[in-house]
Amino acid sequence: MFNKILIANRGEIAVRIIRACREMNIQTVAVYSDIDKEALHTQLADEAICIGPAPAKDSYLDIKRIISAAIVTGANAIHPGFGFLSENSKFAKVCEECNITFIGPTGDMMDRMGNKSKARETMIENNIPVVPGSEGAVDGIDEAIELADSIGYPVIIKASAGGGGRGMRIANSREELVNSYKTASAEAKSAFGDDTMYLEKYVTNPRHIEFQILADNYGNTVHLGERDCSMQRRHQKVLEESPSAAIDDELRKRMGKAAVKAAKAINYKNAGTVEFLLSDSGEFYFIEMNTRIQVEHPVTEMVTGIDLIKEQIRIADGEKLNYTQKDVKIEGHAIECRVNAENPSKGFRPSPGEISFLHMPSGKDIRVDSAIYCGYKIPPTYDSMIAKLIVYDKDRKSAIKKLNSAIGEFIVEGIDTNIDFQYDLINNESFVKGNYNTSFIEKLMEK
Amino acid sequence: MFNKILIANRGEIAVRIIRACREMNIQTVAVYSDIDKEALHTQLADEAICIGPAPAKDSYLDIKRIISAAIVTGANAIHPGFGFLSENSKFAKVCEECNITFIGPTGDMMDRMGNKSKARETMIENNIPVVPGSEGAVDGIDEAIELADSIGYPVIIKASAGGGGRGMRIANSREELVNSYKTASAEAKSAFGDDTMYLEKYVTNPRHIEFQILADNYGNTVHLGERDCSMQRRHQKVLEESPSAAIDDELRKRMGKAAVKAAKAINYKNAGTVEFLLSDSGEFYFIEMNTRIQVEHPVTEMVTGIDLIKEQIRIADGEKLNYTQKDVKIEGHAIECRVNAENPSKGFRPSPGEISFLHMPSGKDIRVDSAIYCGYKIPPTYDSMIAKLIVYDKDRKSAIKKLNSAIGEFIVEGIDTNIDFQYDLINNESFVKGNYNTSFIEKLMEK
Repeated sequence: MFNKILIANRGEIAVRIIRACREMNIQTVAVYSDIDKEALHTQLADEAICIGPAPAKDSYLDIKRIISAAIVTGANAIHPGFGFLSENSKFAKVCEECNITFIGPTGDMMDRMGNKSKARETMIENNIPVVPGSEGAVDGIDEAIELADSIGYPVIIKASAGGGGRGMRIANSREELVNSYKTASAEAKSAFGDDTMYLEKYVTNPRHIEFQILADNYGNTVHLGERDCSMQRRHQKVLEESPSAAIDDELRKRMGKAAVKAAKAINYKNAGTVEFLLSDSGEFYFIEMNTRIQVEHPVTEMVTGIDLIKEQIRIADGEKLNYTQKDVKIEGHAIECRVNAENPSKGFRPSPGEISFLHMPSGKDIRVDSAIYCGYKIPPTYDSMIAKLIVYDKDRKSAIKKLNSAIGEFIVEGIDTNIDFQYDLINNESFVKGNYNTSFIEKLMEK
Repeated sequence: MFNKILIANRGEIAVRIIRACREMNIQTVAVYSDIDKEALHTQLADEAICIGPAPAKDSYLDIKRIISAAIVTGANAIHPGFGFLSENSKFAKVCEECNITFIGPTGDMMDRMGNKSKARETMIENNIPVVPGSEGAVDGIDEAIELADSIGYPVIIKASAGGGGRGMRIANSREELVNSYKTASAEAKSAFGDDTMYLEKYVTNPRHIEFQILADNYGNTVHLGERDCSMQRRHQKVLEESPSAAIDDELRKRMGKAAVKAAKAINYKNAGTVEFLLSDSGEFYFIEMNTRIQVEHPVTEMVTGIDLIKEQIRIADGEKLNYTQKDVKIEGHAIECRVNAENPSKGFRPSPGEISFLHMPSGKDIRVDSAIYCGYKIPPTYDSMIAKLIVYDKDRKSAIKKLNSAIGEFIVEGIDTNIDFQYDLINNESFVKGNYNTSFIEKLMEK
């Protein structure tokens, strides 16, 4: 087993990974930007190395500095967490060249899934349902119009290299498509240096359902059930739960099989997530595969009992999965709320600053993954997520009750947070009924 | 279901009970002494009533004031927690007279178990093994000598009304017995106003093994497995785990049956704990039954998934247990460390004062039950326990690893704690092997 792992990340996921390593008796190396000197991950690791100034491109995104830190400290593996370099195939390849194990899939696997139109082609070849649309990239506006006319409006055009909503437009008619195509491809060109576009039928009011995959280096691939991540604001997940209230055992089985097939199609290894859109009429479509651990992984840990970070490390170390699909039992219900330093009443404006008082909920089946403490100064530089509150109970109704109690107890003073917003969300009648889709929050905000 | 419960306690157990009520949509009333105005339980409850000055006898032990608080606030049930009035039969009876449900057994049940020699008689009548000794009280020193000669030394003499080591002496010979009897009965007379004594064979190097009982009002009684509480200092538990490393399935079954029988012998209802001594040769003996929730209940919650406080409330409300003994599954391993505000290197002297910095561990299967926060002033008046750290993992070895990581992350500044002492304890080779008994810490401290 690795004797030392460098964590190429910050915040709660860095702390989460450090904890897993500690429990496995693996030494840890934190890297930090100069603004993160007092951060919890910096303090909690066995060693910590400053890798540059606050802007991520000069520190957490700087491959050379991170590799140097690993070499200097003698770390024989790197865990990338999520965000930053976690899906950067070049980084994975450089690690390999330097004889440092990258805890995740290979760079080639990332490339095959990271390029959206390539991934789509792979799925079609493997009979995994995708949203009707172009096979790969569309060759200009004329082909786009022809295709849209044949599959019917609304359609969505997306940049192949895109993400986070950039280079993406919905068109309800041929006229809209002409304009949208122009602006979206221009946006893609400037944001990603690549204006390759593809086009799909736009699924209205879909659920975002994703399946957690674990695959070892020997072809053993299982899924650990789904997460319902339909509660989103501007394509950012806000609350996640497992299982989904919209899925029954039969559909779970079919979608799970498709997810495993998707991973196997590229001989995927390590942890990954296959994302689907689920239409309100029950059809599901592959949208993408995330080749890393996800923010919302704890809900899966709660309902399966499996520690995903430890599994990532074990798989990277060459261990075989010691269970098959049949052995994976999904029991009870888990919900995660993302706690962000932001002000919902002011357009969710980020609210960095010093935490003057902090009380986090605890108790039976309540978990808070965070990297904050009383007196900690949240820097303005990074993502606004400061904690994840995860609860578990025997069923969805009980889990919501528990979450109500736990959110009500969560106190952060000195900065603004979305805690009250989350409280309102989980007490919304539609949420309580399990009846919501990806446009739920958007519609709620319009009221 | 009750619409409002008064919690007649303070500290982490009061917070624990408030949390359970919140999750059950039951309103809560906290009572507090004037020194506890800023305490977490006072702040977390829906209502809070000051019931008097700091000394417990003028507040948390004052039946009249607590009953008045319940009547004034319209609470229709009282949860006593542990300590204070939790095993005071008069309190339970007064609650009943005032039409307030006491969440626990009846006063009569408490009396039948609270009086040690009466409880012993009951066990003998029901063929539950007890430590060889006097049947009930001994009638003076002559009978004590005669009995000790027949069962063999060492023997232990105990006050019937005793507890916490007071009115208790070990005698290794007839000469020691004569002296010990005198001093112990005098001590009992002055401490409890009752010098009734009983005598038992002294079991050397025993394990303290206790079984969690749940019994509804309809005669359904189950046990939830055992807790090994052998890690004690001066009869105070320091660390508890479930299951015990000293017990196999066959013995668990036999002891569990005896525990259920003990509870049924007095038609016990609600949560209770049957305590046994387990000799190094594998014999077990009933020692007492605690007629309340225990400090260490979370380890049982972790391995069974059952929320004991909620079960107490449901049972008190007249609900039937919705599972039988067969349905109770014990899975994995849980360990609890008591974090005390005390200085182990100075004879475990209590260390009250202000917490200037606080970081508590969290993460997968890590739970901290506490009532402290950054800036909280621990009063010098009450028990020194400020938090309980509970971890769960698939087996004992993994649980110890997890506990190591979690304890290492637990930071309390401004006061002294026993955190380092606990760290040393769980890294002691004998503990790691599961090889320890009730005199383990005493012997460790002599080194």
